[in-house]
Amino acid sequence: MRIDIITVSPGLLQSPFEHSILKRAINKGLVEVHFHDLRKYAINKYGKIDDYQFGGGAGMVLMIEPIDKCISELQSERTYDEILYMTPDAPVLNQAIANNLSLKQNIIILTGHYKGVDQRVRDKFVTKEISIGDYVLSGGELAAAVVCDAVIRLIPGVIGDETSALTDSFQDNLLSPPVYTRPAVYDGMEVPKILLSGNFPKIDEWRAEKAYEHTKNIRPDLLED
Amino acid sequence: MRIDIITVSPGLLQSPFEHSILKRAINKGLVEVHFHDLRKYAINKYGKIDDYQFGGGAGMVLMIEPIDKCISELQSERTYDEILYMTPDAPVLNQAIANNLSLKQNIIILTGHYKGVDQRVRDKFVTKEISIGDYVLSGGELAAAVVCDAVIRLIPGVIGDETSALTDSFQDNLLSPPVYTRPAVYDGMEVPKILLSGNFPKIDEWRAEKAYEHTKNIRPDLLED
Repeated sequence: MRIDIITVSPGLLQSPFEHSILKRAINKGLVEVHFHDLRKYAINKYGKIDDYQFGGGAGMVLMIEPIDKCISELQSERTYDEILYMTPDAPVLNQAIANNLSLKQNIIILTGHYKGVDQRVRDKFVTKEISIGDYVLSGGELAAAVVCDAVIRLIPGVIGDETSALTDSFQDNLLSPPVYTRPAVYDGMEVPKILLSGNFPKIDEWRAEKAYEHTKNIRPDLLED
Repeated sequence: MRIDIITVSPGLLQSPFEHSILKRAINKGLVEVHFHDLRKYAINKYGKIDDYQFGGGAGMVLMIEPIDKCISELQSERTYDEILYMTPDAPVLNQAIANNLSLKQNIIILTGHYKGVDQRVRDKFVTKEISIGDYVLSGGELAAAVVCDAVIRLIPGVIGDETSALTDSFQDNLLSPPVYTRPAVYDGMEVPKILLSGNFPKIDEWRAEKAYEHTKNIRPDLLED
């Protein structure tokens, strides 16, 4: 998989891709991630990439021309399966969307900043708009990193222990059951006895019950689908 | 505001805090962010901080003892308003939660990794569990960065143009209307005439209509509350 991220702040994105799972996926050659500084496609020598909103109002808007130039350059080099735009006013990322994106070959991720991009960019270039949740961030960079992390970890070979991803929250529409590790007693707090019993069918049953209970308490909406 | 982030991968978090709005907020002295490497509180000289799950199953679990030591040390230095734990099996962050957190003085954010933390950490220390959305990430670090960004940008003085945050998506339970900037015509695509009219009451009306339409199309659930 190849991911091209278009951003006004490529430096912001650096460290998440140089550590942990994302670094490992890149080092193993399972994914290539390239950052493209939108300012390199500015409309003038002063690096202009944004302007005031038509109709008045606070906040700058990213112009269509630099984005067009950057996307066109990338598209002249290869075909892209999706051009994503990260914005809070879009359908919200979920595990099903992440699973689906993990099967793509080439993806462009355009990150908004300030008040977002000129609507014509969305109309003309973007194939899929994604929000990571119902809150506003100062830019789309962290949102892009979140999408990359959610997607890249699903690519076969990225996570060492394959079965780990399959027992994550959401893969079966339930939240995870509680987990415990050593010591069995800490500061008077004991691990549930069943987990120490070695009775694996009973443990599975207990976990399924706890996952259901936990989901019902915290996220009853997940059980409605 | 002071935020202390407990993590197994402090390097991963570095660049988001060194750019853009978060950097500016820190430089202006409006927020202090400190990273604490959980491995410094390991239970042995080999840096042990995790262990297998009781009851079997894939994925490592962060042990209670290192986390206890780190949190206790921080609590001996100051009082914390909240100890957040970032995990997908928790209530989901929204703008109201971000607004609320932006009023706090001292916050600890504990980030999960692998299969998460021993449940006893959650029972004993954590005051608020937060998910950033219905998808699984390889660790809580990006989730912590997302919470920090959503919260810190709301602190008065962080964003230059105060009115910009107030017209963001979600502050009024509606998505933003489309925005446009120069040029008025690009590759045959025109900006809606109303935005060039200078008739500001009409423009406000148009934007309110578009915001409602957009919300109804993409996120009808937001209109139900």
